Amino acid sequence: MTTHIPPFSTPEKNRQIVLAKRPEGTPRTSDFERKEVAREAPGPGQLLVRTLYLSADPVQRGWASNPALTPIGAPMRALAIGIVIESHESTIAQGDIVYGFLGWQDYAIVTRVDLLSHIPTPRAPLPAYAGVLGMPGVTAWLALHDIAPPSEGKAILVSTAAGTVGSVVGQIARQAGAHVVGLTGSDDKITRCVSRYGYDAAFNYKTGDLAATLAAARPEGFDIYFDNTGGWILDTAIRAMAKNGRIIQCGTAATSSWNPPPTGLRNEREILMRTLSWTGFVIFDHVARFGDAIDRMTDLLLAGKLVHDEDVENGIDKITNVLEELFAGSNSSKKLIYIGED
Amino acid sequence: MTTHIPPFSTPEKNRQIVLAKRPEGTPRTSDFERKEVAREAPGPGQLLVRTLYLSADPVQRGWASNPALTPIGAPMRALAIGIVIESHESTIAQGDIVYGFLGWQDYAIVTRVDLLSHIPTPRAPLPAYAGVLGMPGVTAWLALHDIAPPSEGKAILVSTAAGTVGSVVGQIARQAGAHVVGLTGSDDKITRCVSRYGYDAAFNYKTGDLAATLAAARPEGFDIYFDNTGGWILDTAIRAMAKNGRIIQCGTAATSSWNPPPTGLRNEREILMRTLSWTGFVIFDHVARFGDAIDRMTDLLLAGKLVHDEDVENGIDKITNVLEELFAGSNSSKKLIYIGED
Repeated sequence: MTTHIPPFSTPEKNRQIVLAKRPEGTPRTSDFERKEVAREAPGPGQLLVRTLYLSADPVQRGWASNPALTPIGAPMRALAIGIVIESHESTIAQGDIVYGFLGWQDYAIVTRVDLLSHIPTPRAPLPAYAGVLGMPGVTAWLALHDIAPPSEGKAILVSTAAGTVGSVVGQIARQAGAHVVGLTGSDDKITRCVSRYGYDAAFNYKTGDLAATLAAARPEGFDIYFDNTGGWILDTAIRAMAKNGRIIQCGTAATSSWNPPPTGLRNEREILMRTLSWTGFVIFDHVARFGDAIDRMTDLLLAGKLVHDEDVENGIDKITNVLEELFAGSNSSKKLIYIGED
Repeated sequence: MTTHIPPFSTPEKNRQIVLAKRPEGTPRTSDFERKEVAREAPGPGQLLVRTLYLSADPVQRGWASNPALTPIGAPMRALAIGIVIESHESTIAQGDIVYGFLGWQDYAIVTRVDLLSHIPTPRAPLPAYAGVLGMPGVTAWLALHDIAPPSEGKAILVSTAAGTVGSVVGQIARQAGAHVVGLTGSDDKITRCVSRYGYDAAFNYKTGDLAATLAAARPEGFDIYFDNTGGWILDTAIRAMAKNGRIIQCGTAATSSWNPPPTGLRNEREILMRTLSWTGFVIFDHVARFGDAIDRMTDLLLAGKLVHDEDVENGIDKITNVLEELFAGSNSSKKLIYIGED
């Protein structure tokens, strides 16, 4: 199969959004600047990829703070969807769609290990491969599967319930027959959780007494807590768990800086008395499993059983705002920036 | 088989050590008083048990603080070994040895559910059934088996390493081929850990920089942490774990009061980044498995593969001191009080 590669308007130059200074806490637009460099040529084993959709993800806070992952002056480490322009790797062909660590730039030179997924024949719209079929969606799928599969009669609590991970967790859990309760940060998102993602109930953690809310929502306690926030929300959720409950630690969005080390309630007594099991999940440990997960999730998606919300805008300069809005919690869907054209 | 039941000197009276007032923090001798009441008679389904060996265990801090478990004026809730004097329960015979919730008293009227083990034909010395073959030893055995079986090449860290639970954890882990490191509170106990229980190394958490000690002891990190303490030792150990490590939460000896709720370092980021799994273990959830565990551990013990240290003194009045010493960390073995004679 020969895939049509569109003629890009400026094939010789490479626009980049680079890290201008090390962020304090969450990265802001002012931490980045735009740069143009000459496009380079791939070597043996390498791919030249034209980036199409730039992604902004919460995990970039850690990448931006780590000099080994994003040096000052280098393109921001980022996931993106691109099309292979030139391949020196036998398993990947020119014209193939790939999703991986392409960075915020027009052209990336990468190898197989920089990719999370290789999509020679896309069955879903391309933006989905950075959202519901990308890192966030596959995280939800694998973490639930590995650590705490939901089932009929179980109750699951989800933080950042309307987010790119949470919205998939909620849908999978509901379809498995579980009772699904979400925590989120705005009334709009509560509405999305219930009406769009099928949550049985959702609550705004910013208002009211969360401990009392959780006790009323599930007097017998939650069997699973899928945590993307950490912090006091986690501490409160731990105390709302049922005996033998499982906690999936998937993110720590509530804490903007770990230096100096933050403190909170001691939790070991709850772990002991409720015989909880609390497990961390890092999606990058499971890259080899992306293909299979995407196949199975695409089946659900095409059968209309998985709603998804990827929202695309144009213009490379907007990507830093998308990241800033992400940390402000103001996004209501997975926002991607299309940079296929200047 | 007819078992000889010794003639007890005062069969009609029942000495009890009762809780005189609700302890503040850890129970002390002054919280208890001795009482004598008339011996009562068992009803249908009940057993009359003459208590032989009284046990003192760390878990009694929780029992002493809970009015539902130990009312003021009632015998202290306690494990003990006794002999059945009169049985109205078809599966247990007069003369059988039992281990369970007999309380600190000469005579207990109990039912099957109050027993942890029923030992019709003891193969080991009776005191062992409250130590290495009792709650502490079976806790070590089952918690390791269920949550994090040690094996060749793995490194395990154990807190309260010379204690009744820790000493068994250390031995099982060492025999499984793991590298075993203990934390304890005195240099004498370090010696016991290494020379008697087979630890590869043991350290006094009260001296030196524990984080540096652990990093030097196992630069690549620990695969298993068997925690009996919680508190800052736990926080330090979490930060010395290897990727995918497992933490068994078995006790919280380092914290003497949970009211007001104590605070400490936030740990969710470590759980996430190291992809740890942290699980609580409560032995009383596993009473049905005692018999099998005891059988297998007795085989090891009789083969000389499990050293144990139960130390017996006489005199019911000494039991409160044994408990107080336990919380002070000054015991060097499982101490039991024999009360078969006045």
